[in-house]
Amino acid sequence: MIRDVPDVALAELERHCLGRVSVAAATLVQHANTLSIVAAQPATAVVWPSNTQDVKNIVEIATRYGFPLIPFGAGTSLEGHVNAPYGGVSIDMSRMNLILEVNPDDMDCHVGAGVTRRELVAHLRDTGLFFSVDPGAEDATLGGMAATRASGTNTVRYGSMRDNVLGLTAVMADGSLIITGSRARKSAAGYDLTRLLIGSEGTLGIITSLTLRLHPVPGAIAAAVAVFPNIESACNTSIAALALGGGLARVELLDATAISAINKSARGVSAQLRPAPSLFFEIHGSLNSVEDNAKQLCAIATEFGALSFDWTAAGDHRALWKARHDAFWSIREAWPGRTPVITDVCVPVSKLASCVCETVQDCEHHKLIAPIVGHVGDGNFHAIIMVDKADVSETGGCNWCSIDW
Amino acid sequence: MIRDVPDVALAELERHCLGRVSVAAATLVQHANTLSIVAAQPATAVVWPSNTQDVKNIVEIATRYGFPLIPFGAGTSLEGHVNAPYGGVSIDMSRMNLILEVNPDDMDCHVGAGVTRRELVAHLRDTGLFFSVDPGAEDATLGGMAATRASGTNTVRYGSMRDNVLGLTAVMADGSLIITGSRARKSAAGYDLTRLLIGSEGTLGIITSLTLRLHPVPGAIAAAVAVFPNIESACNTSIAALALGGGLARVELLDATAISAINKSARGVSAQLRPAPSLFFEIHGSLNSVEDNAKQLCAIATEFGALSFDWTAAGDHRALWKARHDAFWSIREAWPGRTPVITDVCVPVSKLASCVCETVQDCEHHKLIAPIVGHVGDGNFHAIIMVDKADVSETGGCNWCSIDW
Repeated sequence: MIRDVPDVALAELERHCLGRVSVAAATLVQHANTLSIVAAQPATAVVWPSNTQDVKNIVEIATRYGFPLIPFGAGTSLEGHVNAPYGGVSIDMSRMNLILEVNPDDMDCHVGAGVTRRELVAHLRDTGLFFSVDPGAEDATLGGMAATRASGTNTVRYGSMRDNVLGLTAVMADGSLIITGSRARKSAAGYDLTRLLIGSEGTLGIITSLTLRLHPVPGAIAAAVAVFPNIESACNTSIAALALGGGLARVELLDATAISAINKSARGVSAQLRPAPSLFFEIHGSLNSVEDNAKQLCAIATEFGALSFDWTAAGDHRALWKARHDAFWSIREAWPGRTPVITDVCVPVSKLASCVCETVQDCEHHKLIAPIVGHVGDGNFHAIIMVDKADVSETGGCNWCSIDW
Repeated sequence: MIRDVPDVALAELERHCLGRVSVAAATLVQHANTLSIVAAQPATAVVWPSNTQDVKNIVEIATRYGFPLIPFGAGTSLEGHVNAPYGGVSIDMSRMNLILEVNPDDMDCHVGAGVTRRELVAHLRDTGLFFSVDPGAEDATLGGMAATRASGTNTVRYGSMRDNVLGLTAVMADGSLIITGSRARKSAAGYDLTRLLIGSEGTLGIITSLTLRLHPVPGAIAAAVAVFPNIESACNTSIAALALGGGLARVELLDATAISAINKSARGVSAQLRPAPSLFFEIHGSLNSVEDNAKQLCAIATEFGALSFDWTAAGDHRALWKARHDAFWSIREAWPGRTPVITDVCVPVSKLASCVCETVQDCEHHKLIAPIVGHVGDGNFHAIIMVDKADVSETGGCNWCSIDW
């Protein structure tokens, strides 16, 4: 049931956020834009708070008139988070984009929820520190990443948002403000409200600022591509590689179809990659430890039958990870008549090989085009099923576009 | 107000836990034994559940008759957690001590809440894996460590219980059973109930089993003792050492008074340590990375004016950490007429040096005997104030023993 936002409420919003409320159709649609096959479900209005007090005012108005609020970061959700199925107001956090404090000695920083990951990365350049969570192709806001408990390619070493948010400020549904955690590295006092809000997707409160953990830029980084005769060998290599411990920063799996899509696109690596199941690795550490780990890693891949194992030239790391981060877009472009249905599964790493192999068999059996990419160091992979929307049999007889999933 | 446990409730407990309910005075006192200066406040009865169903039955009885339950692990709390200020039943988890599963490939295990840290460490010997959280001198249960969000000397590298519990089973106040988390390394689904229960100290539910993260035993370990002319140099060294990143596993501060107490006791290192502000270090990694980190660490300590920096012989690591872990006991024994009042503070590491120095000045100003030890890699330290209970002026005019703190 759509709850309309009455004109009197819009007027109140406008009074608090002068010139920062919009009901323009194009703006509404842009704020419900989602890359999933869920149809756009626009809100009734969009409002841009400038600070926590604005958010508090907006929440109080919404509570008084009983309409939903949909927090909006950068709108990069692939899964329809920014849709407004019950109407209400989209609360766009992009103006709360101040980097409020960086404390190099404490390796932490305090940022507004609307600061994007790329803005923070750029700001930290030359500090010797970096922010580790990198969820993928697009630039997300840090508030959105916390609300969705984002992870990414180097979670295997540095953890997800769960591990890298020290505390936050949030406005709860009744308009009350809470400040959780602290800049102290640990605490045994009180309930862990920070972690309760991380991953709560706006259902408990609206995050307005965050204290984030930073990491020292490693002294040495090495990246490699290993190519395997089959996907099982690739998975088993990634499992064995975890025993290296702290040095392993990324282990990404791409199957032959995903590699072919990367080769077709102009995103990332310029040379053609061998279209076979592959692992992309990155190792962080001191010069000597990276060398140690590199040798061990190469030995493990060889033991599991790697066809090749090539270190990436120092200048090419960025291109390799751009190719990986953009794999979703390369895949999407490779089949222009189709739409991706993204699956996202995480299993204990010991079950990874069998789970991936069964998935491949299932897809083959159903004649699905379903390239596989995955953060396999965490046991997490995606089969990106490219469906022909016009083909009812392929979509299981459903009109996916109207499913609220 | 003490809520008595009626005889009919005791009979019900006895029916469910045949022969595992006690009202013997000595047992009651032992279950309220606390090392703080808070007087023992015994429960009315003690019950020993054998499994989660027993816990569920006990909770349902307590809820029906309205008496408190006090979860009891190994009773190692220094701060009165096991006291029963409002009466009720102490629920002793020590029989739920089965190590249910170890999954070496996934580097995790599933244990009953009553398994102690030492039992787990012993069980994991020869697996190439270890459980990292080590809160100190005594052997605690893993359920108690989760409930109190325990940390320890190597939290700086491996995190606290917050980071090392993947999921748990708990009986809530209404008797309902919840199973949180999973063996998958990460998840963005649902609220983080695992972290909500960790640190909740029995106020939300009783933890009955846990899935724990394990770590690969490092290929190489080095330990060192650095001695400084003053406590400020020691603190500043520890802050600078954090920039080494992942290699640094432990950084512990001990002031001259604490070192003297260790020298007096027979706990840990046999040779006399130099009675001056000291840092105990441990580095984990590959052979080469430990060597890299060791050189860097020595250079940092020298830069901050270290009087000496000595690597510990390979066989002596255990003795060094025993000395550190037992420092509280050594300190307690060094002043037999006095009782320790333990303080526990955690600040951003950049504030550590000034906070420790001000604390030292305050203690000197008030003529207090207050040795300092700390997990300074996390910005966390303890001033252990040795008070003469008979001296009213020293205790601030309070009878500490009756304070409910």
